[in-house]
Amino acid sequence: MSVVALSGGVGGSKLALGLYHILPPNNLTVVANVGDDFDHLGLHVSPDIDTLMYTLAGIANDESGWGRADETWSFMTALEELGGPSWFRLGDHDLATNVLRTVAMQEGMSLSDVTTKLCGALDVRAAIKPITNDAVRTLVHTEQGVLPFQRYFVEEKTIPKVNRFEFEGAKAAKLNPDVLSALEDDSLQAVVVCPSNPFISIDPMLALRELSQILRASSVPVIGVSPVVAGRAIKGPTVKMMKELGMEMSSSAVAFHYKDILDGFIIDESDPVLIQEFECPTIKAPTIMNTMAQKKRLAQIVLEFAQSIAVD
Amino acid sequence: MSVVALSGGVGGSKLALGLYHILPPNNLTVVANVGDDFDHLGLHVSPDIDTLMYTLAGIANDESGWGRADETWSFMTALEELGGPSWFRLGDHDLATNVLRTVAMQEGMSLSDVTTKLCGALDVRAAIKPITNDAVRTLVHTEQGVLPFQRYFVEEKTIPKVNRFEFEGAKAAKLNPDVLSALEDDSLQAVVVCPSNPFISIDPMLALRELSQILRASSVPVIGVSPVVAGRAIKGPTVKMMKELGMEMSSSAVAFHYKDILDGFIIDESDPVLIQEFECPTIKAPTIMNTMAQKKRLAQIVLEFAQSIAVD
Repeated sequence: MSVVALSGGVGGSKLALGLYHILPPNNLTVVANVGDDFDHLGLHVSPDIDTLMYTLAGIANDESGWGRADETWSFMTALEELGGPSWFRLGDHDLATNVLRTVAMQEGMSLSDVTTKLCGALDVRAAIKPITNDAVRTLVHTEQGVLPFQRYFVEEKTIPKVNRFEFEGAKAAKLNPDVLSALEDDSLQAVVVCPSNPFISIDPMLALRELSQILRASSVPVIGVSPVVAGRAIKGPTVKMMKELGMEMSSSAVAFHYKDILDGFIIDESDPVLIQEFECPTIKAPTIMNTMAQKKRLAQIVLEFAQSIAVD
Repeated sequence: MSVVALSGGVGGSKLALGLYHILPPNNLTVVANVGDDFDHLGLHVSPDIDTLMYTLAGIANDESGWGRADETWSFMTALEELGGPSWFRLGDHDLATNVLRTVAMQEGMSLSDVTTKLCGALDVRAAIKPITNDAVRTLVHTEQGVLPFQRYFVEEKTIPKVNRFEFEGAKAAKLNPDVLSALEDDSLQAVVVCPSNPFISIDPMLALRELSQILRASSVPVIGVSPVVAGRAIKGPTVKMMKELGMEMSSSAVAFHYKDILDGFIIDESDPVLIQEFECPTIKAPTIMNTMAQKKRLAQIVLEFAQSIAVD
């Protein structure tokens, strides 16, 4: 049973880790958002890929939700001393990932192949695949003008009110052939939309028409897990964005947002919304994933739910 | 009284530091070799510039002779873990210098201007100027073939026997206009050839015809300090190279090597060579510079010697 999971950074990576631990090795493909990627200090920075890679390798900083555990910050200290830009923080270990990726890409290697190589070095036995090898960049249209994603997210701390998101390059971007292969594999049993931010983690991927067409047409169940519990985001600015975009702040609004692709949806057991109100088959489950046991349990529920839908 | 000093890394930087401490602020221009520079991990690495900059800023690692004091190595640890090249070591703080330099140069800033900016951030009140903004790269012709400088120096630890050195790009390279200005300044009182390795630190600079012509024609005394004491190099492979190049291993051979440009030469007080054997005015002095007092004393001797020659 092979599985494809679509994920952004910290929220999605928890479920990805659960799936990674319950599936046999090499049966999981995690498709990563690249809308957060940007060039910084001459480096190609891929925050979501790295969060996924570090999480599956067991070396992620779970507290901050990005970067590596046991990180040191000498580079940033020296950079600030030299008058360099300090708004975006790169740890000393994390820097090695970014430097090696940048060198390899400058030598002509695709982002997907670099990621595979880095995962190999970190002994990650799942495939982490960027949605595309082309540049897709999230631009945030705010009341203060258009901001590149990291300026909005890190420098401005998501404070400016959002009008809409734009995914520059998405229309021209080609789906990563490795992602296409994983989605067309005969052994594929489920596509999981992880509990990531719909607007900045999943939408930049769905903005590739090839992907959304495949998911709409897919005979394999596409299962979403809500990042919103009882009107609150588990982490991050999802609900703040829903408000600013004029949406209802609820898990049902998330399901509605994904309505074209979902075959099943999972909301938290504590969510007061009635599952009968959803357009697609929906179940309640414990979606809070603080411990490894909780991650594995939710992963198991997702797969069983997918199986039950496939049988129907 | 303004002074121009030609220097490579560790050996020369000691005298440069002595000059820095006895001259009034902004009266010293240290001209740095760039033959050791190379592109590594996508970064423009300038070992001699950085050793000079860190030395004058008081943050150099005096024990190793390169890099910064109190350095940390998380980047290298992570780089090795990820299968990256580990033969050339870059400390976490040092990396910030290299990253900022590379970004600035990619944006079109000259190596000279980047160096000035970095020196400003580190509060270095001498001008450290690369000999040229163009690429001059030392190639080492050895019995094992031609090696790029850092491969020979760091990876092969200077073990391969040297036939000759080549300074790729030197003929086409333009003298840094700031160096030209310093050499043509009316207040210039002395040009000092620091006790650096003649073959790999000073020769790559003299390979720029414009520089050697100016030094030959200069009315300002050009004073050399021998890096060889009683047939031994104070540090590094100078004497090993002299042997392999078929030269006599002595301070007089160093003076002979520089004969076209020198107006005065200083050898160590312990050197048994008779100063009468030298073609240019030569004095003996304590040239070992372990302490700051020794560095300042030798700098003082150099300047007084230059003055005495100028008066003659």
